[in-house]
Amino acid sequence: MRAVEWMPQNRALRLIDQTRLPGESVTVDCTTVDEVVDAIVRLVVRGAPALGAVGGYGVAVAMAQAEREGWDAARLDGEVRRVRDARPTAVNLAWGADRVIPLMGEGIEAVITESDAIMAEDEAANRELSRLGADWILAHTGRDKVRVLTHCNTGFLATTAWGTALGIVRELHARGVLELVYADETRPLLQGSRLTSWELTHDGIDHVVQVDGAAASTILRGLVDVAIIGADRIARNGDTANKIGSVSVALACADAGIPFVVAAPSSTVDLSTLSGEDIPIELRDGSEVTTLAGVVTAPDGARGFNPAFDVTPSRLISAIVTEQAVVEPDGSSPIDALVATS
Amino acid sequence: MRAVEWMPQNRALRLIDQTRLPGESVTVDCTTVDEVVDAIVRLVVRGAPALGAVGGYGVAVAMAQAEREGWDAARLDGEVRRVRDARPTAVNLAWGADRVIPLMGEGIEAVITESDAIMAEDEAANRELSRLGADWILAHTGRDKVRVLTHCNTGFLATTAWGTALGIVRELHARGVLELVYADETRPLLQGSRLTSWELTHDGIDHVVQVDGAAASTILRGLVDVAIIGADRIARNGDTANKIGSVSVALACADAGIPFVVAAPSSTVDLSTLSGEDIPIELRDGSEVTTLAGVVTAPDGARGFNPAFDVTPSRLISAIVTEQAVVEPDGSSPIDALVATS
Repeated sequence: MRAVEWMPQNRALRLIDQTRLPGESVTVDCTTVDEVVDAIVRLVVRGAPALGAVGGYGVAVAMAQAEREGWDAARLDGEVRRVRDARPTAVNLAWGADRVIPLMGEGIEAVITESDAIMAEDEAANRELSRLGADWILAHTGRDKVRVLTHCNTGFLATTAWGTALGIVRELHARGVLELVYADETRPLLQGSRLTSWELTHDGIDHVVQVDGAAASTILRGLVDVAIIGADRIARNGDTANKIGSVSVALACADAGIPFVVAAPSSTVDLSTLSGEDIPIELRDGSEVTTLAGVVTAPDGARGFNPAFDVTPSRLISAIVTEQAVVEPDGSSPIDALVATS
Repeated sequence: MRAVEWMPQNRALRLIDQTRLPGESVTVDCTTVDEVVDAIVRLVVRGAPALGAVGGYGVAVAMAQAEREGWDAARLDGEVRRVRDARPTAVNLAWGADRVIPLMGEGIEAVITESDAIMAEDEAANRELSRLGADWILAHTGRDKVRVLTHCNTGFLATTAWGTALGIVRELHARGVLELVYADETRPLLQGSRLTSWELTHDGIDHVVQVDGAAASTILRGLVDVAIIGADRIARNGDTANKIGSVSVALACADAGIPFVVAAPSSTVDLSTLSGEDIPIELRDGSEVTTLAGVVTAPDGARGFNPAFDVTPSRLISAIVTEQAVVEPDGSSPIDALVATS
């Protein structure tokens, strides 16, 4: 089972509908740009690495639709751009689209093959960064069994397979050195309680779900050895955008003196973004805050303020892990060591 | 309209059912100890100052029930203790009960009169601490209009009238110097979005509701001038227990260099508790985390971890305000200046 899959028979992008989990396990097939964009915007598919693959296959969907409906080149370019820019914060979506766009002239099969490569590379990156991250954590916590706090969902649902921060959790579990996971529920859309807990339950990994407001005190009370989160974009100076609530975990880790680790494939590192101030933060509809699962939680007329991401300054990050390297932002290694030197 | 009211006709403790707000505005009349304890445990009534009055009137309910049902003294003592100890963290509940227990020998009317005095004193304290708090904030932010962040509900619903932290907000609004309130929704039970937003909407005070995870970034982005919270117990060294999520707001304020203010009546100061480590933290049922308004938000079998409060160390608190004084824990005034010297 994968969050993102290409269906050659009907030239469809098949996605696990993550808005329906954990109650229902269903997939949706996107065969039009409208469907792809809608799936991205409604978070049927989310997670920076998964969005990288969606950026690639989304271009293929546009090309197939163009062929069926006889679009001219300008129309196709506009529709490809709609896919590429459907969400602003995670750099991977644009990165995935930009990687296949130069191949459009070679035909849809070339675009699909390149998207398949994005998938394969992401999975390999996740597995490698999980090994590097687990090594770093065991070396720096000095514990036989570690208690991990994580925020949002960074597992196979957020990636092409395995996971980033949750990939490290899986690696620690596989090595028999994981004691317990504290999963922040991650309001407003509850990716932690709906998705992370679902993945951990499936894998038989011992965990508890807590409200986001509990993270700081859980850390300050000494119940956690390390916090590990994913990333939607890592700037050249190490500042990292991730799901709203992440910087609050980082502040607590700094105060408690435990490591705060960011895990992502190198495709999430954006050396053209100089610092966190240059990362666009998606402001989503306030109704996501004032309702939950269809239940209205605030009085009539109340306005929700709903930034989807926050920026953790690099000074609060102990280590950033990609498949290429582990960089300690306060140390001597430059951030560009996180990216392959090709 | 008051959150807590004594009904002499039927010797009942009348409470606004805060679990039903903002959808429904209904009251419940408690005429038995079981009903009083159930209302406290289910958070029909909550908020440290309101619980002080409930502690007093709850003893009166027990006495009335004892009279009707012919309890002996030992039974009555046991039932009074059940009211007093129905929740562990807020010191006010036990404080209110302990204040009227010595009067039980004088009869139920003496207990009711003393409980009425608790109500009147709390309202007066709220109004006075609101003035002191507003003065301190305007002096220390140096702004003409202030943008305030608050957590949980500390308004008239949490007190006998007016409010503590929200009383300061009301005072700032009355003075025409309030720009905007950021109200944290306060998971798991959403006292912020359900109750604070309801009170602010009623008073026409401009505000937005945000998820608790957004508080830190809202503060770090410079959108807030001061955070003001209430307290469930203030220890002798200034460490303060308050609704889960409060310490995370304090960490962000410290990092951003803006004031973090605690507001409470002097009845919340417990000089017999030496530090935050000595404050019992209520661990509530995990299902409050894994569900919301009847909607299951986590997979089958997922466990919720649900501490209801956290402790903010005094080093992170800029000022503690009671009706007696404003104390800056890092300054020279001792914490006992917060309590009346009688």
